[in-house]
Amino acid sequence: MAKTDWKAKAKGLKKRVKALTGEAVAVAAAPKTKVKQVSPLAPASFPDLPLIKGARFAAVEAGVRYKNRRDVMLVALDAGTTVAGVFTRSTTRAACVRDCQQKLAIEVPRGSGAAIIVNSGNSNAFTGKTGEKSVAAVTGSVAKALGIPAERVFSSSTGVIGEPLPHERITAVVGDLANNLTEDGIKWAAEAIMTTDTFPKGASAVIEGEGGPIHIAGIAKGSGMIAPDMATMLVYIFTDAKITASALQKMLSDNVGDTFNSITVDSDTSTSDALLLCATGQSEAAPVKGAVAKAFQTALRGVMMDLAHQVVKDGEGATKFVEVRVTRAQSPDDATRVAMAIANSPLVKTAVAGEDPNWGRIVMAIGKSGAVADRDKLAIRFGEHLVAEKGWRAAAYSEEATAAYMKGQNLLIHVDMGLGKSNRTVWTCDLTHRYIDINADYRS
Amino acid sequence: MAKTDWKAKAKGLKKRVKALTGEAVAVAAAPKTKVKQVSPLAPASFPDLPLIKGARFAAVEAGVRYKNRRDVMLVALDAGTTVAGVFTRSTTRAACVRDCQQKLAIEVPRGSGAAIIVNSGNSNAFTGKTGEKSVAAVTGSVAKALGIPAERVFSSSTGVIGEPLPHERITAVVGDLANNLTEDGIKWAAEAIMTTDTFPKGASAVIEGEGGPIHIAGIAKGSGMIAPDMATMLVYIFTDAKITASALQKMLSDNVGDTFNSITVDSDTSTSDALLLCATGQSEAAPVKGAVAKAFQTALRGVMMDLAHQVVKDGEGATKFVEVRVTRAQSPDDATRVAMAIANSPLVKTAVAGEDPNWGRIVMAIGKSGAVADRDKLAIRFGEHLVAEKGWRAAAYSEEATAAYMKGQNLLIHVDMGLGKSNRTVWTCDLTHRYIDINADYRS
Repeated sequence: MAKTDWKAKAKGLKKRVKALTGEAVAVAAAPKTKVKQVSPLAPASFPDLPLIKGARFAAVEAGVRYKNRRDVMLVALDAGTTVAGVFTRSTTRAACVRDCQQKLAIEVPRGSGAAIIVNSGNSNAFTGKTGEKSVAAVTGSVAKALGIPAERVFSSSTGVIGEPLPHERITAVVGDLANNLTEDGIKWAAEAIMTTDTFPKGASAVIEGEGGPIHIAGIAKGSGMIAPDMATMLVYIFTDAKITASALQKMLSDNVGDTFNSITVDSDTSTSDALLLCATGQSEAAPVKGAVAKAFQTALRGVMMDLAHQVVKDGEGATKFVEVRVTRAQSPDDATRVAMAIANSPLVKTAVAGEDPNWGRIVMAIGKSGAVADRDKLAIRFGEHLVAEKGWRAAAYSEEATAAYMKGQNLLIHVDMGLGKSNRTVWTCDLTHRYIDINADYRS
Repeated sequence: MAKTDWKAKAKGLKKRVKALTGEAVAVAAAPKTKVKQVSPLAPASFPDLPLIKGARFAAVEAGVRYKNRRDVMLVALDAGTTVAGVFTRSTTRAACVRDCQQKLAIEVPRGSGAAIIVNSGNSNAFTGKTGEKSVAAVTGSVAKALGIPAERVFSSSTGVIGEPLPHERITAVVGDLANNLTEDGIKWAAEAIMTTDTFPKGASAVIEGEGGPIHIAGIAKGSGMIAPDMATMLVYIFTDAKITASALQKMLSDNVGDTFNSITVDSDTSTSDALLLCATGQSEAAPVKGAVAKAFQTALRGVMMDLAHQVVKDGEGATKFVEVRVTRAQSPDDATRVAMAIANSPLVKTAVAGEDPNWGRIVMAIGKSGAVADRDKLAIRFGEHLVAEKGWRAAAYSEEATAAYMKGQNLLIHVDMGLGKSNRTVWTCDLTHRYIDINADYRS
């Protein structure tokens, strides 16, 4: 038998690994443990967020599931704070989500403070009556520590579904959390709520109110509409604006369709999605109204959009950030159907991963969407590159130029339906080997 | 610098490739070309199909796109044949699909024969008016060669979307096809229509009619609702039964919901899906009616189900065949919504690939489906293993036993909604690295 040429073998295998992962291999042996790679689409660093007077943060290690990291965070909000929220519509949503919804429906005196407590590592979803008891224990403990009504303590849990929440590990650290609250602790809160996220997510805005500036600062987590077992997108936004709960709720609800409800990583919907927006009212500016209200809503929308995009950019295995823009559909529903059919198509998303301007798959997705379409009126573009129109490949189409465009990190897929006046834009990421790596692993 | 230990390097890399692909690596170097691996779920061999008197088959190499293989097939059907069909509802469906639909709507004298011509390698979809001309050229050429009206020549094309069909390569071989028609050529037809399929698909049945046996033989292609660029599921079923076109169409339409419309590989829908059912009427048995009609419909359903399951078993990258059974939903729509939400969920499908009884993801899919659900009435089973009930993990649940079950090739996910009387069963496969390999490749 000929002597084995291990060097040639190793070189061949290196190529194979590179073909499979797109990564050059420098190490001699396979890594023994799964290393969390920061998304190539991550921002350079966590942004400087403005302080929000009346909102204080703390985060500690409670060991709910993860070791050696902060996994529980607390936000304490001064008396006078108004709160608004939007939540997942999943019929199997978690006990803490239902609890938040019930509490937001209660009229409360503005005299009392409020709080938000969040743990990562366990979602307390599908945990029966025990799950409800855990929510009561955690929120009751915070109420006692801060001296506020339990009806004003909101909670979220994110992580594995269907395992009992070891809530005594959380109640055990509530005293610590209450003693360490600080106005500049929002970054630690953003880190404590991460699960499969590869970077903490923050965004902010400042507008001029009447008599002083109004600040907005928000944090989010999410790495898929649902991550491995680690469910959830969670978002917490704080402002010092003086604004009523009903006005705050209306602005939030009006903004959510174009922002958080316009992103998709894998079409799967978490049992725990929650967004809470809290206004402490401690800005020196006058109560928000008129032109300031408009500016405030626009700024809020900007913060929500920024956080929503960061969630997509941290999509499991994502290497490309893709805007799907549908214009001139016959109805708003049709525009949404086409945009989501493209953004959720595994074949479109794998083509993007392969940097292939495969417009046939866009045609397929339009066709299956159920929207009214006229083959001869459609126009399909990758960025500025017109690829198809008049029922066929565009005359000026250049495969070479379009393929070069697809090598970028930020891509636009634009479908003009040529039928009506309805537009919709959504954002998604590509579907890569890493998504399978992350999600085909056994839970343990 | 220390001498490099190439052997250790190669061994480490082997492990890495195995972790990435699930495949052991024996070769020294990365394969230069993509090798078509036969699905591990493929049957041992193509089945022996009964001859259908009055139906003759031929297949040849035309070089439409593929080289060194048969890529065009022709079926000639004797005078007296009735034809029924069902087709994709995609709004961007191919020219040949629209042509079939128009022709089936025409009342034709049973005196004339009929034919089906199919090419692989190019789907002639989204090819504008040119595509329609190609269909007319191909079907006209067959009509002339066989001496039958063009209105009785049906065609399908499967392959890349949006490229002009080089129809002159097909018309050039029509003479050859017509000269080589044979009653026992159905296997060559099954092979000629393959694209990313890894095995040819056939199924059959025989029932006792009044005065003699009635035979059914069918072939199919499909490796995903849409394969890479290679669109399509195509199905052709032949019988010697004496039956009217309207009775044939009704049986076909009644059977299609539970069979071909109950499978999904990747939730993407082809622009070319077509199923044609042809009855030559040359059995010695009397015209189909009464109890024989019932038996015939059942046998036809069996053939359709068998072919549908083979399509899933050849799903791109599939290593597991999964039945998703939903029982006691509040309405038929709800049963379908839950079944399809589970069968199409990337997170459920990657968990199956990882042999992980991850019932939390089943809970997630039920929750997002939009169906009415009561957490405390749900029961979730993997095979016979009850994993969740009464709003929580089942008391008797054994992770070890259920994980062992998930190592099988044929899996059942059973969700009992506990609410009503509606049931739905659908079939799907797992989502693996190979799906990404196949679909993230550049087209060329």
